[in-house]
Amino acid sequence: MSTGKKTLVGQIDPTVLAYTAGEDVLLDRVLVEVDCIGTAAHVTMLSEMPLAHPLFTVAEKDQVVAALIGVIRDHRKEAFRISASDQDVHLAVERALTAKLGDLGKRVHTGRSRNDQVAVDLRLFAKEQLFHISRETAGLAKVLLAFAEKHREVPMAGRTHLQPAMPSSLGLWASAHAESLLDDLELIRGAYRQNDRSPLGSAAGYGVPLPIDRARTSELLGFSRPIHNVLYASMARGRCEHVILMALSQVMLSVSRLAEDMILYLMPEFGYFSLPPAYCTGSSIMPQKQNPDVFELARARSADVLSCAMRVASILKGLPGGYQRDLQETKAPFMEALRLTHETVTVLQPLMQSLQVHEDSLRAGCIPGVFATDRALELVADGVPFRDAYDRVKSEPDALEGRDPLVAALQKKHEGAPGGLHISGLAKRATDTIDFVNREQKCYNNKVSALLGIEYPSL
Amino acid sequence: MSTGKKTLVGQIDPTVLAYTAGEDVLLDRVLVEVDCIGTAAHVTMLSEMPLAHPLFTVAEKDQVVAALIGVIRDHRKEAFRISASDQDVHLAVERALTAKLGDLGKRVHTGRSRNDQVAVDLRLFAKEQLFHISRETAGLAKVLLAFAEKHREVPMAGRTHLQPAMPSSLGLWASAHAESLLDDLELIRGAYRQNDRSPLGSAAGYGVPLPIDRARTSELLGFSRPIHNVLYASMARGRCEHVILMALSQVMLSVSRLAEDMILYLMPEFGYFSLPPAYCTGSSIMPQKQNPDVFELARARSADVLSCAMRVASILKGLPGGYQRDLQETKAPFMEALRLTHETVTVLQPLMQSLQVHEDSLRAGCIPGVFATDRALELVADGVPFRDAYDRVKSEPDALEGRDPLVAALQKKHEGAPGGLHISGLAKRATDTIDFVNREQKCYNNKVSALLGIEYPSL
Amino acid sequence: MSTGKKTLVGQIDPTVLAYTAGEDVLLDRVLVEVDCIGTAAHVTMLSEMPLAHPLFTVAEKDQVVAALIGVIRDHRKEAFRISASDQDVHLAVERALTAKLGDLGKRVHTGRSRNDQVAVDLRLFAKEQLFHISRETAGLAKVLLAFAEKHREVPMAGRTHLQPAMPSSLGLWASAHAESLLDDLELIRGAYRQNDRSPLGSAAGYGVPLPIDRARTSELLGFSRPIHNVLYASMARGRCEHVILMALSQVMLSVSRLAEDMILYLMPEFGYFSLPPAYCTGSSIMPQKQNPDVFELARARSADVLSCAMRVASILKGLPGGYQRDLQETKAPFMEALRLTHETVTVLQPLMQSLQVHEDSLRAGCIPGVFATDRALELVADGVPFRDAYDRVKSEPDALEGRDPLVAALQKKHEGAPGGLHISGLAKRATDTIDFVNREQKCYNNKVSALLGIEYPSL
Amino acid sequence: MSTGKKTLVGQIDPTVLAYTAGEDVLLDRVLVEVDCIGTAAHVTMLSEMPLAHPLFTVAEKDQVVAALIGVIRDHRKEAFRISASDQDVHLAVERALTAKLGDLGKRVHTGRSRNDQVAVDLRLFAKEQLFHISRETAGLAKVLLAFAEKHREVPMAGRTHLQPAMPSSLGLWASAHAESLLDDLELIRGAYRQNDRSPLGSAAGYGVPLPIDRARTSELLGFSRPIHNVLYASMARGRCEHVILMALSQVMLSVSRLAEDMILYLMPEFGYFSLPPAYCTGSSIMPQKQNPDVFELARARSADVLSCAMRVASILKGLPGGYQRDLQETKAPFMEALRLTHETVTVLQPLMQSLQVHEDSLRAGCIPGVFATDRALELVADGVPFRDAYDRVKSEPDALEGRDPLVAALQKKHEGAPGGLHISGLAKRATDTIDFVNREQKCYNNKVSALLGIEYPSL
Repeated sequence: MSTGKKTLVGQIDPTVLAYTAGEDVLLDRVLVEVDCIGTAAHVTMLSEMPLAHPLFTVAEKDQVVAALIGVIRDHRKEAFRISASDQDVHLAVERALTAKLGDLGKRVHTGRSRNDQVAVDLRLFAKEQLFHISRETAGLAKVLLAFAEKHREVPMAGRTHLQPAMPSSLGLWASAHAESLLDDLELIRGAYRQNDRSPLGSAAGYGVPLPIDRARTSELLGFSRPIHNVLYASMARGRCEHVILMALSQVMLSVSRLAEDMILYLMPEFGYFSLPPAYCTGSSIMPQKQNPDVFELARARSADVLSCAMRVASILKGLPGGYQRDLQETKAPFMEALRLTHETVTVLQPLMQSLQVHEDSLRAGCIPGVFATDRALELVADGVPFRDAYDRVKSEPDALEGRDPLVAALQKKHEGAPGGLHISGLAKRATDTIDFVNREQKCYNNKVSALLGIEYPSL
Repeated sequence: MSTGKKTLVGQIDPTVLAYTAGEDVLLDRVLVEVDCIGTAAHVTMLSEMPLAHPLFTVAEKDQVVAALIGVIRDHRKEAFRISASDQDVHLAVERALTAKLGDLGKRVHTGRSRNDQVAVDLRLFAKEQLFHISRETAGLAKVLLAFAEKHREVPMAGRTHLQPAMPSSLGLWASAHAESLLDDLELIRGAYRQNDRSPLGSAAGYGVPLPIDRARTSELLGFSRPIHNVLYASMARGRCEHVILMALSQVMLSVSRLAEDMILYLMPEFGYFSLPPAYCTGSSIMPQKQNPDVFELARARSADVLSCAMRVASILKGLPGGYQRDLQETKAPFMEALRLTHETVTVLQPLMQSLQVHEDSLRAGCIPGVFATDRALELVADGVPFRDAYDRVKSEPDALEGRDPLVAALQKKHEGAPGGLHISGLAKRATDTIDFVNREQKCYNNKVSALLGIEYPSL
Repeated sequence: MSTGKKTLVGQIDPTVLAYTAGEDVLLDRVLVEVDCIGTAAHVTMLSEMPLAHPLFTVAEKDQVVAALIGVIRDHRKEAFRISASDQDVHLAVERALTAKLGDLGKRVHTGRSRNDQVAVDLRLFAKEQLFHISRETAGLAKVLLAFAEKHREVPMAGRTHLQPAMPSSLGLWASAHAESLLDDLELIRGAYRQNDRSPLGSAAGYGVPLPIDRARTSELLGFSRPIHNVLYASMARGRCEHVILMALSQVMLSVSRLAEDMILYLMPEFGYFSLPPAYCTGSSIMPQKQNPDVFELARARSADVLSCAMRVASILKGLPGGYQRDLQETKAPFMEALRLTHETVTVLQPLMQSLQVHEDSLRAGCIPGVFATDRALELVADGVPFRDAYDRVKSEPDALEGRDPLVAALQKKHEGAPGGLHISGLAKRATDTIDFVNREQKCYNNKVSALLGIEYPSL
Repeated sequence: MSTGKKTLVGQIDPTVLAYTAGEDVLLDRVLVEVDCIGTAAHVTMLSEMPLAHPLFTVAEKDQVVAALIGVIRDHRKEAFRISASDQDVHLAVERALTAKLGDLGKRVHTGRSRNDQVAVDLRLFAKEQLFHISRETAGLAKVLLAFAEKHREVPMAGRTHLQPAMPSSLGLWASAHAESLLDDLELIRGAYRQNDRSPLGSAAGYGVPLPIDRARTSELLGFSRPIHNVLYASMARGRCEHVILMALSQVMLSVSRLAEDMILYLMPEFGYFSLPPAYCTGSSIMPQKQNPDVFELARARSADVLSCAMRVASILKGLPGGYQRDLQETKAPFMEALRLTHETVTVLQPLMQSLQVHEDSLRAGCIPGVFATDRALELVADGVPFRDAYDRVKSEPDALEGRDPLVAALQKKHEGAPGGLHISGLAKRATDTIDFVNREQKCYNNKVSALLGIEYPSL
């Protein structure tokens, strides 16, 4: 057995260190800025604490904040490193501060633990990611709605069980996928709200014997309020990630159904759509191939994001209360799912925007059988009971020839039917989401700017 | 190959019929009432439709509603059967109506499909279940909060990594689990809102060529509004279940952590708590055993509910748009998860209420090491930098003897710490949830009573 | 709090009893026979134990065995009930024995626990189920292989990314799905082997202070050998189920891909196949519909079986050693997955057997692009480097017209290509599996017949 | 829309390229060697093909093999790069060969596709990983068995429901976890066998119009045989990974239960064990902490590996036959799970080896209640029926005082009980596995050495 490798918190066997640090050294790179911001808020609050001998004078606080801005700038220039012996971003930043400020750096960890520090980092990180994801998801919804508006009068075979079922329109199809995303955005907003609470000041889950002001740090960081119970604040790590991941899963499930439709309708047997070659990929052996890989990957990545949510849930299930190291393992799937979802809802926008529509093929897909229900309901209108009309239509297939699918589709004029779509109402929901996100993000940037005393994020 | 078995919708091979009907005939029993209610709303709307020859006169509508009330009453007396050849509750009710009303019965399916019918049934069913689950989850939170209030001044070792970490209190512990449930209730409310929209009138996902009024049926059934796009209304089957299941998963994850704590602290090595014998189960071979089976099952059932959510997600992933028969398979896990969650949050209440607390054991668990951080922070207060204080405490374990854990715990007075708990604030969140649910349920019952023309649910 | 309901193992609160018994009373019905068989082996071994005062004389053993046969016969006549106060099949059978044999009945539980009793029951149950599932899976493979043999010379567009890729044959397609199932059968056999070990005699996981002969009960029940360590025997509950469920998951994944292909190729845009109407289901609103519901459900049920495996894994993950009540929750998903897999591989056989093949449509699907790779390789044969040939073919699409897809497919004669299929080799693997299963089952029936002293399973 | 970025297989939009390449450029680094080995086998077979104009002369083949050895050596010196425009390892190696050999390099892809190339790469990669994992898993079993042998006579409370249940021994405990791993190794061997079949020559899943010899490449690469059907060979991508991941999941589930036991028994309330400080990690705020993070992470990583298996299954579920781009997404979870499992079974060995055992604490944990069953069975030996004995013991708790737990444990002498453990038998199973793996690995290395004409892996 090795005598161990020295770290800030003790000698550790190198294999154990490697196993326990895991991917943190890599993953934590995206947390450098938020870690500095969280520390700035913590030190600011400490400097305001009504103590006989303040932990930080205002001047000392300013020194720390300046050093933190320095770390952020170094990081942006790729000049800040998290080394293996740092273990994570928190000790790396503390090391940098101590290198620059001496004892002052050693004091910044007073009254908190890595537990609440990483918890606040992840919530700040998630907040920004949710801004991006919400905006792009709403963006994809808008692309689909614009597509729906444009092709409101293009007929399309409505299907159930994939079999042609009833006359429909391309507008109905595209705006259905859009409305799904709009509902998903509500789930993201719910997750955003749960994320928007500050765990800071919970320390290791049992508080600190200092008159810290948790409402103050919460406010400095632009959270809506602190999580109340400090033990719960600690246990909410993993839980908050899970809540966000569930919302992302639902976004990706919606996307996967759009992707599946695209994969189907891009087959030559349908020929409904075609994609610009630059949006397809070829084969290393088959020269003729133009494959819709993006849609296949979007479909597969819905499974990825689902499995990230399941991973976190499965890590949490049955853990006792209080911090357990298991929670560290929620970081990687959390970050991966945020990234995959963001990339997916982003990449699909230009594809859907540049889609070529082949109206003839869409019209040709409306085989006579799709008019059967309409015919049955015409008989009903003439007084035939529905079940009898149903049986009669079944026995007279020829009576369905020669109808126009667009006329048949648009004839359904009630709310939400091909002839009764209010696309502008759906588009407004997308726009409202974007407005909300923009407001929230501006508000957050203002808070951080005030905290750091410098325009954020430009610095 | 068999020539098939006659059903309302065609001859079907008996093996295929058995395979496709699955458990529907059993599962659908809980949908009988909501199916009748949904049909009452549909027929009422049809009777109001501005047609030259109305599909239903008011008198006919009243006949249908009366017959539907008859079906509900039969069902309550266990006198209504769904047979295998019915396939499902919808055709069973239609058969019953036709038996009683002749042609009038055959007409009730005009302008809808089983797709929107089952979708509306499941949403009405879910609505009631969510009332129960929300109430019982809030009830469990209240039990935990009352327990926390009572044991606010009972010391307890706060743990991280399950190792004793810091002085804490039983009040902190119990109210942490409660706050987790309160946040979960927000997720349920979010899911409730998504559920609270009417899919009725979407038919098979492409609308109907009749001037149906979807806002009217939505209103008659007490939904907040219709889902707009009819194709999305159809695709939202499964999606809505998934959204609800995700919220339930989170409730069960919270419960699983409470359960794990209970299983640990009921071991004689801790002896923190004991349960009345009637709440334990014995062993068939070991006479001395009093096992905390309920907590173990609550833990396992969190995995059950998670797997129900994952099952539904995995069914939906990559399905094309429009109805696919796969969606039928979301029914069983949906109902199972609702039932398991409901039972779990209910059964845990009397257990937590009757828990005997052994304060001596809790106090004894507070070994000297738990005071190390406090000591380090005292040194900090004397001017020692935190990292130096940390090292000094590590090298002087004896200096930690003789402290009182309760004093040490309550000395943390900032928000959410053992000495800074505002339990009444959390309790108010629980009460508000119950009030919200009661109001919503009353409103729903009033709507149904108006629709049926008779006091519901008493009938 | 209630004073509790009397059970064989103590007074239990009725709500707790209901929560803890769960679905056992229902699920355990399928375990009645194997529970009796397990008990017969246990008592037989006890009667052979070299004790001064034998626990059971041979005559007493015979009485018990006769009573057990009685229970089985009652069960087959639906005259044996497991009541709620029994809690499970084990106490129900013990109650029946005691009712019939008095003190002798009370003695049968000597030297075992419900832990090893249910473990042995589940393994005997699983053994029989695996016989059925293996046979039907091999049966489905044989159906696919016969189909492949018959349509060896029917051309079909081979696809990648669902886009037409290369000329292929229906024979290749069908036998590919078959070979997947054949490999899955190897996994089932591996799981079968792990299941084929006796946990009996492990009691509650710590053995018994009696000279029981675990090898003897193992042999009486036809197991290959006992699990050695008694604690592991206890922990293997859940683990064994998980191993079997993983194998079933893979079977269902293979099936899901076949099902997806069928759903696609049954669309009119392909028109490759059609199904007899009795194997489709209709729509309640669309008279023309003939939907391939069986394939859709097979696809969805692959998600069901996967989620059963995941459920069990998630229950087990992080459990401490030794029996925990959580393990009870593995029973329902285990039984469900066995049933769903069995039904699915069974129902698909007549469908695939009765499939009508439309060769014209299959041929028409072979659009010119599918010949591009062949053309490139012809150029290579003429000395053009592959990458250059690839580029040339890409720029000369017209050169691909007029080829015969069958000729092109069968021209690939190397192993496993359309022109190099050895279907009989694959068929032999299926037949060998069936032979293996038949031998194992016969051997098992012989063992049980010897144990009970009467022809089993006919009794 | 961008005009796209040039790749070997066409112009692709940079965002699409980034999205579709995913992490391949990083992940594929571990495939460089096996990709070269696979190509060497392919070209060797091509050079042996009985053609009038051979595709490769022996001299040309030798040139290619030499260039491939060069790539491997560059890679080992970190001098080989896979760039973003390469997309993946295959095109990177082809580019390197073409740079070095001109037209000769362009010819190596003749008669295969990236589909079968990556499939063969992954199987060769998996083979090596399974060697390591099997060896380390068997190694961990051996460590546990040595521990069991050493502590065969250390008493320990056997638990069920975590409550003390019966007298047991540390030897029983440790060897139970070992036997679980030994059974898991059988699953790995089953997965290894399925992996040990060559997909090479299947090209894009439809074969090639050349007389390639698939048995020959299979043999050159040391596979047991080719996968027969070429379409199945293509579809087996993802499936093979899934089969391996299922086996790894089970290993990690076994590990998670050991880990959970360790986390429990390292708590001071038990004090059964202690770990050297270098194997624990500390806290950034609590100076006294020595946390068993490795065990917590092992537990969490069991959820990680499970979720990798579930991810792959969920990707595969419902995919149509033939290659789909979704399959690319199985690569990352496959590699991650192999790595995590390998690291986990490796890191646990020194921890378990260095574990300090506190026999007094273990003995003290054997509270009187654990003797209840023994007492009941003594009464049975005196002629009391078991159920009556059970009731009597329950009412006379004092009669259980003063027993020696070790004597009581070892008194259970039947197979697999604390007094009937045959640890050497289990140890032999571990050794046999290691021997098998060593033989297989040597055989594989010999094959590769023969193929490359140079000692492998030393090169």
